[in-house]
Amino acid sequence: MSRVSVKRRILRIRDAAPTRRIDSLAAEEPLEIRLDGTPLTVTMRTPGDDFDLAAGFLVSEGAVGSADDIATIRYCAGATADGQNTYNVLDVRLAPGVQAPAPRNFYTTSSCGVCGKASLEAVRTVARWAAHDDPVELGRATVAALPGRLRAAQRVFDRTGGLHAAGLFTAEGEPLCVREDVGRHNAVDKLLGWALRNGRLPLRGTVLMVSGRASFELVQKAVMGGVPVLAAVSAPSSLAVELAAEEGLTLIGFLRGDSMNVYAGEQRLDLTSGAGYGSAGVPPPR
Amino acid sequence: MSRVSVKRRILRIRDAAPTRRIDSLAAEEPLEIRLDGTPLTVTMRTPGDDFDLAAGFLVSEGAVGSADDIATIRYCAGATADGQNTYNVLDVRLAPGVQAPAPRNFYTTSSCGVCGKASLEAVRTVARWAAHDDPVELGRATVAALPGRLRAAQRVFDRTGGLHAAGLFTAEGEPLCVREDVGRHNAVDKLLGWALRNGRLPLRGTVLMVSGRASFELVQKAVMGGVPVLAAVSAPSSLAVELAAEEGLTLIGFLRGDSMNVYAGEQRLDLTSGAGYGSAGVPPPR
Repeated sequence: MSRVSVKRRILRIRDAAPTRRIDSLAAEEPLEIRLDGTPLTVTMRTPGDDFDLAAGFLVSEGAVGSADDIATIRYCAGATADGQNTYNVLDVRLAPGVQAPAPRNFYTTSSCGVCGKASLEAVRTVARWAAHDDPVELGRATVAALPGRLRAAQRVFDRTGGLHAAGLFTAEGEPLCVREDVGRHNAVDKLLGWALRNGRLPLRGTVLMVSGRASFELVQKAVMGGVPVLAAVSAPSSLAVELAAEEGLTLIGFLRGDSMNVYAGEQRLDLTSGAGYGSAGVPPPR
Repeated sequence: MSRVSVKRRILRIRDAAPTRRIDSLAAEEPLEIRLDGTPLTVTMRTPGDDFDLAAGFLVSEGAVGSADDIATIRYCAGATADGQNTYNVLDVRLAPGVQAPAPRNFYTTSSCGVCGKASLEAVRTVARWAAHDDPVELGRATVAALPGRLRAAQRVFDRTGGLHAAGLFTAEGEPLCVREDVGRHNAVDKLLGWALRNGRLPLRGTVLMVSGRASFELVQKAVMGGVPVLAAVSAPSSLAVELAAEEGLTLIGFLRGDSMNVYAGEQRLDLTSGAGYGSAGVPPPR
């Protein structure tokens, strides 16, 4: 049985009489990430690409920035009562001289109690790359095509309807890597870990597309990966927009069909290209 | 300015020329919950009902089960550099004799490495109430009406399109309490905290309806609140279904229009009532 989906008998109620059928569910299992043998975090995730997930989590936390920062990643021998390896515990060994991350350092600093500004400041402190000077430019039609391309690459969603997706695309809209997970943050961490382990950080010139909303945490992850453009199918939060504006990211939300809202960094959008545009472009800021 | 939504100038791109307009965003701010002065957790939440959120978090973690278990909740004096209280730090004092919760105790136990079964076991260990013997029964039409009723009660979503919602309903489909938040777990914790502080735990005979998917964590919260029925607009995960089945909850997913999938606890659904049914009812299990 595949570990990314699980079959289960359900009662399906539609117009006519209820029927029983076998349904595929998105798999959810805990993953414990250890750092040099010490438990660091446990996340509920869809099994698969676990090494990428662990590496990407460390990118998000600001602990690592290149493949060389990680010495080894391996599954622990932790086993269930009947002796089977659970493949739910990973141990990451950092390279000599690489500092372990402080837990959850983006949400709180001692500087001013706890507030949104402190969260923004914490990201700025640990960010390794700046998006401000990334000159990438995207055509409107390219952006409008991203949700369809992300959806087309979602393999497990088709069976289960139950997974968040995140994809990395080139400025021309070509997919570099797509990941699915029950946790939206996990799907993005899997991308960042893939990029780290393939020597592709910082992700200059790319677009990160997510299937749901854009929270502070997702913008933070884009910043930590050096991604200049984040596009989401649904709404961003207030703090997500503030962080994007401060870090020089382009943030696009409500990306549906040919429509979108641009919350920050509109200079990267070429509105003269694509659907229904002449050279009119965009009205000047008021 | 309301703290639950924030206004921001955006670029809106639709069919014709892009326009600039003022948009409302769902507010997101960190909340630090302290326990007897010691930081316990920081969650990114939409401000509002913060005392309920803190109380509900402690219900979810298994630390408290009645209003008497909490002595006081108050905002700390923590202030920004310019001397304003952030209202982002809460201190909860437990009543004498009430144990502080172990952090994140649902995801990992030492018994068998880390696995889904261990997570189920951890919930069983700390759960105060059992749903198994809750005799509540729901008509199909009542269940089918829940998404519309939840949506009707969402006030901030109408402005921002950016919030998760969770609602508690009676078995007749009447709303008891509805909460919105950028974090789905926060919306449910706000409900549980409301219930605790109003002496309504365990929530026997009620339905918890959520706007998104049903994860392990959401089923766990329903269990910890003594809720017998959880209904979700979207898909459940594998571990969510396992936990519901084990704890005797009714779990309904893909609740849209008159359709739904029942993943566990179908005995609580009266399928002879409502839309298009005679006395045919449900086919016997195979």
